[in-house]
Amino acid sequence: MKVRAAVAWEANRSLEIEEIDLEGPKEGEVLVRIVTTSLCHTDMFTLSGRDPEGLFPAVLGHEGVGIVKEVGRGVISVVPGDHVIPLYTPEDPNCPYIKSGKTNLSQSIRKTQGLGLMPDGTSRFSYKGQMIHHYMGTSTFAEYTVLPEIAVAKISKDAPLAKASVMGCAVPTGMGAVRNTAKVEAGATVAVFGLGAVGMAVIQGAKMQGASRIIGIDTNPSKFALAKQLGAHECINPRDFGQPIQDVIVDMTDGGVDYSFECIGNVNVMRSALECCHKGWGECTVIGVAGAGEEIATRPFQLVTGRVWRGSAFGGVLGRSQLPGMVDEWLRGDFDVDPYITHNMTHEQINTAFDLLHAGQSIRSVIHFQPNETMTGNLPGVIIPA
Amino acid sequence: MKVRAAVAWEANRSLEIEEIDLEGPKEGEVLVRIVTTSLCHTDMFTLSGRDPEGLFPAVLGHEGVGIVKEVGRGVISVVPGDHVIPLYTPEDPNCPYIKSGKTNLSQSIRKTQGLGLMPDGTSRFSYKGQMIHHYMGTSTFAEYTVLPEIAVAKISKDAPLAKASVMGCAVPTGMGAVRNTAKVEAGATVAVFGLGAVGMAVIQGAKMQGASRIIGIDTNPSKFALAKQLGAHECINPRDFGQPIQDVIVDMTDGGVDYSFECIGNVNVMRSALECCHKGWGECTVIGVAGAGEEIATRPFQLVTGRVWRGSAFGGVLGRSQLPGMVDEWLRGDFDVDPYITHNMTHEQINTAFDLLHAGQSIRSVIHFQPNETMTGNLPGVIIPA
Repeated sequence: MKVRAAVAWEANRSLEIEEIDLEGPKEGEVLVRIVTTSLCHTDMFTLSGRDPEGLFPAVLGHEGVGIVKEVGRGVISVVPGDHVIPLYTPEDPNCPYIKSGKTNLSQSIRKTQGLGLMPDGTSRFSYKGQMIHHYMGTSTFAEYTVLPEIAVAKISKDAPLAKASVMGCAVPTGMGAVRNTAKVEAGATVAVFGLGAVGMAVIQGAKMQGASRIIGIDTNPSKFALAKQLGAHECINPRDFGQPIQDVIVDMTDGGVDYSFECIGNVNVMRSALECCHKGWGECTVIGVAGAGEEIATRPFQLVTGRVWRGSAFGGVLGRSQLPGMVDEWLRGDFDVDPYITHNMTHEQINTAFDLLHAGQSIRSVIHFQPNETMTGNLPGVIIPA
Repeated sequence: MKVRAAVAWEANRSLEIEEIDLEGPKEGEVLVRIVTTSLCHTDMFTLSGRDPEGLFPAVLGHEGVGIVKEVGRGVISVVPGDHVIPLYTPEDPNCPYIKSGKTNLSQSIRKTQGLGLMPDGTSRFSYKGQMIHHYMGTSTFAEYTVLPEIAVAKISKDAPLAKASVMGCAVPTGMGAVRNTAKVEAGATVAVFGLGAVGMAVIQGAKMQGASRIIGIDTNPSKFALAKQLGAHECINPRDFGQPIQDVIVDMTDGGVDYSFECIGNVNVMRSALECCHKGWGECTVIGVAGAGEEIATRPFQLVTGRVWRGSAFGGVLGRSQLPGMVDEWLRGDFDVDPYITHNMTHEQINTAFDLLHAGQSIRSVIHFQPNETMTGNLPGVIIPA
């Protein structure tokens, strides 16, 4: 079938909306109409060429929501009409990693996913006969995409599709890192480095856990108001201080925080995040993805004196078994996703979304594939005129 | 009083047995006759001059056992005649860190301890009027030493003083790291880097926890027999392989180990220890103490994909409330300390003990201050003729 897709032809070049070819779902695969998608720094990171796994041409996008249109042979867990969130971290119940109960990092299709291909080693996307890569196993920047069955999470049909895309990455990544990875407890102190969507979700998650003090850190003070609205008790800008930000935080908190989160992908900030943790028990969770070949460093004394350095991918969330429950929490009003959505626009305007993200002017821009269907009513955020 | 002590006059020079002056215990302090002491790499590290906190002249030694001879005003928890182990990690029940229940790193006297002084900011040791520093708050290379009350653990009088010194550091550090820090569970796979006394205690601890596979790693294959005797299922020498040892271990274990321990103090090995951990859940515990200014590094992807980097000091053991129980375990036969003791010698022979440790020919040399008292009977290890 012919589908409209924003194609990344090469690194460091704007996306182009093309009509490309999409093959139907093969065995164990699902055809999904993407209703909305939002943009994450990871898409921008790959497009920049700094991502060592980046492949071109590709259909980027990994934070979306859609409706199942067709299922391939053998698919039993979803049927056409189901609302689903594509999972860049699939959940295969037969994967030994998932069976271990210790991780959400299903390995079943990791290799082909990393190669920009479906599990059978081929792509469903092409343009005039030229293969176009999938991206993160999701490729939500196309109005239709094909996904492995293990990479779709069936969610409640009550979830508004105009907003639900942010449940595809930002919210579970940040909130999950707080709950599943760091396991922040009531009364804990928390430092959040980087006030993008993931950092905001960390703040929201920490507040829900009952953290007693949440400190937001960003070099862009325009993020501070929203961070405070979501639960940060104070926000600081490292540029306002003459000393390393970890020393500032240690001083502010009488020894350091109980938990810190790095939500940027900057290896220097990852060090600060570790070193602002309290001696004896403070734990730093790295969420951000660093550039190819970049390394983190610290003196081992930081660890020997009780700090812990860990990381989190997709918030430790099991996509198929846990993400639907997080969507239900949102629908129950346990938390709100509206604050994440700063802009709404059409598929054709997707490069504007990249520009806004790059300029630090947006948290999440939602791309509406069928504006008449979802870019209506009382949406949060600015609607960019077409 | 006049006491015999092995004095480290300066870095990188043999110790000299001197008759030095020791002031009696002040308020809250305890005078202890050291019956035996053993040598640890940390003593050698400080003597080498690589320890950033090293101060000279000093009475080194932090792994010993002795008998309380006199107590200062206000001391209520021990009386003369009690058998005690000096604690370089003291336990002050009034310290907020200890009250937190999250760490064994009592901070009450950390500053003065780091300065080689008693908590009141002075030293009890002197030589012809010249101040001599305490070391790690213990200074067990003297036949008598003065310790803060919070830095002595009262142990069972059934514990043979000829052997109990190894309960002052090596055994609790290694075994505690397994139980308290990493919390190794039955069935887990374990890699132990560095087969000195701490590494041996890690192996012993992992075996007691029911680890299913314990791999010892050392460049000195002469350690392998003892490691296997204590519970290692196999031992490997990194020099036998053309690829990084972490890759070797990942291959051997189908993805990496559940837990690894670095028991050397080498920052490159600390990286190997992290990277040989299993994706998704493997945890590396750093025990070794690195040289001044040295840093550990890795790609943050190692953490984001689920590995955890932590550290352990004194095995996370609360010295006063938990170490006596570990001594009881030993006395009950739950584990044996004999294998650690490879050599026995007199105080005058202490430089031989450093030579043996440096040459990798000993695990623990026990120094007997009164050979007629303890260097008798059926001792484990070689008795070095005086």
